[in-house]
Amino acid sequence: MVPTIADLGENESLRRTIARLNLANSAIVGPGDDSAVVSAPDARFTVTTDTMVEGHDFRLDWSSAYDLGWKAIASNVADVAAMGAKPTSLVVALICRSTTDISWLESFADGLRDGCISLAPEAAVVGGDLTVADTTVISVTAHGDLEGREPVLRSGAKVGDVIAIAGTVGRAAAGLSLLQSGNKDAISAYDEVVGFQLRPKPPIAAGIEAAIAGATSMLDISDGLSRDADRIAKASGVTLALHRKDLQGYEAILEEPAIAISTNAFDWVIDGGEDHGLLATFPKDAKLPRAFKPIGEVVTKGAYRVTLDGAPIDEGGWDSVRD
Amino acid sequence: MVPTIADLGENESLRRTIARLNLANSAIVGPGDDSAVVSAPDARFTVTTDTMVEGHDFRLDWSSAYDLGWKAIASNVADVAAMGAKPTSLVVALICRSTTDISWLESFADGLRDGCISLAPEAAVVGGDLTVADTTVISVTAHGDLEGREPVLRSGAKVGDVIAIAGTVGRAAAGLSLLQSGNKDAISAYDEVVGFQLRPKPPIAAGIEAAIAGATSMLDISDGLSRDADRIAKASGVTLALHRKDLQGYEAILEEPAIAISTNAFDWVIDGGEDHGLLATFPKDAKLPRAFKPIGEVVTKGAYRVTLDGAPIDEGGWDSVRD
Repeated sequence: MVPTIADLGENESLRRTIARLNLANSAIVGPGDDSAVVSAPDARFTVTTDTMVEGHDFRLDWSSAYDLGWKAIASNVADVAAMGAKPTSLVVALICRSTTDISWLESFADGLRDGCISLAPEAAVVGGDLTVADTTVISVTAHGDLEGREPVLRSGAKVGDVIAIAGTVGRAAAGLSLLQSGNKDAISAYDEVVGFQLRPKPPIAAGIEAAIAGATSMLDISDGLSRDADRIAKASGVTLALHRKDLQGYEAILEEPAIAISTNAFDWVIDGGEDHGLLATFPKDAKLPRAFKPIGEVVTKGAYRVTLDGAPIDEGGWDSVRD
Repeated sequence: MVPTIADLGENESLRRTIARLNLANSAIVGPGDDSAVVSAPDARFTVTTDTMVEGHDFRLDWSSAYDLGWKAIASNVADVAAMGAKPTSLVVALICRSTTDISWLESFADGLRDGCISLAPEAAVVGGDLTVADTTVISVTAHGDLEGREPVLRSGAKVGDVIAIAGTVGRAAAGLSLLQSGNKDAISAYDEVVGFQLRPKPPIAAGIEAAIAGATSMLDISDGLSRDADRIAKASGVTLALHRKDLQGYEAILEEPAIAISTNAFDWVIDGGEDHGLLATFPKDAKLPRAFKPIGEVVTKGAYRVTLDGAPIDEGGWDSVRD
């Protein structure tokens, strides 16, 4: 029988978990002491934190332990990339039931490791905390190295800038809708879309490329294009004018699953988060990095902060304390 | 009527919270973007994470929001100090009920601010995350600046070293026992002891003093002297020989509350964590910083990793996944 974490205790459970992680290039002191020590070559580091709560952000019958480890890495390194920084290190607090099998924890660690190796190969988990409750909570803090560059903030978008996105929008939301539909045929037919909800693949390297190309503002789309575009517009004091035709490709690839469960693909594109694509603005004459596709332009602040073909769009998307 | 965080939504709730925080000297970019940017003058930073779970680490009928904010800071900056580093910045993930009044969140922020100002005046919260669940969880990550010093690890204790502690041991555990007793007279009579459980005051500056004085190993006592001494002994491959007479002063000040609720003060001293005092080892000829009091010496690894007047002591204390 597989022992539970309560059978093994905190020290042994952590030891088995840590043993499965990859090593961070930047770690001077790794897991196991009161703190880790991480190098910060340009005398600065970026730091971001993001939490996933069972029943709110994930369901244990949809996501495996491996999926959750992967997704915890993905959502956090996307916030590092959105500053134009290179992810270097993460710490992970896991709260789970005391009856959790150690094999679940080991799979979770495998997901953390593989998420790092695939998405941000120089980064790794350098510390963590394990405690128990009746709800599973995963809280991650991620650090990045700006490599001498200025951070790309949300507040720098200028009138005349091109708006562009890297990665996808709507795919993770489509995957969630498929899971929620309970339609087993559709879930099976579009397992790649479902897989994107469970194990998103944000375009991490594109964040650094955007910074080098002169991006004036950037964030990762975690709560939906409409809501996240609104954040840039608000922080920069401008209006973001999006073009529907530039979004039709993202919609087109989701038409089939949308038909299968009788819903509308465009809602996923405009309000769906969790792909963790990057939304950025660039000076008009900048050469966009290959990963970025233009979807509109920054205009003078008008009656609405975000428009689609000139019409206002609601600030839809995800509110972490309401939804 | 006071609005709830669900009434206000994530953005407005966060805005009101952030407005109450102090500013970090080290923050180049503060809260509000995808990541904060923090200075790391000696091109390294320390990082540690610690989580508090309702029902497991605290009760909402015992701890106010302000207490919880304070304690979240205290327990984390103690882990920074235990490396010999100066706390610089923290990020805080708060998971609470959607029905939480905004005034609760504001008091929590006040506790975060005052905890920083009192315990680690150059540090502040530079970022966070707010989400909802049916259990309150507070997950904090804290960063430190080694100011050019080598980190003090758990693994450096040498045979012949003096073992010493800074701060108190047993007081927070005594406060918890008083609360658990339900004895209102005793709780009221020893409200200072109860206050130490709710708002611990770890000796943060003593961590840097220890590093400068040549401490060979150090950690903060969060799970009990017996358990944390065992960690140094294990990591360093030695035995820690404690002297009961050197602990009697810590016991003496807890005799009165122990009598009031018919329990044993020494158990608090030897197994109680959460004062977050610092346990360190120093070379025999080192001049101990004033905050540190000797409690034993490091001896050759024997049959037991920790002894008290030569007799083995159980590895008692707190196991975060069993207790």
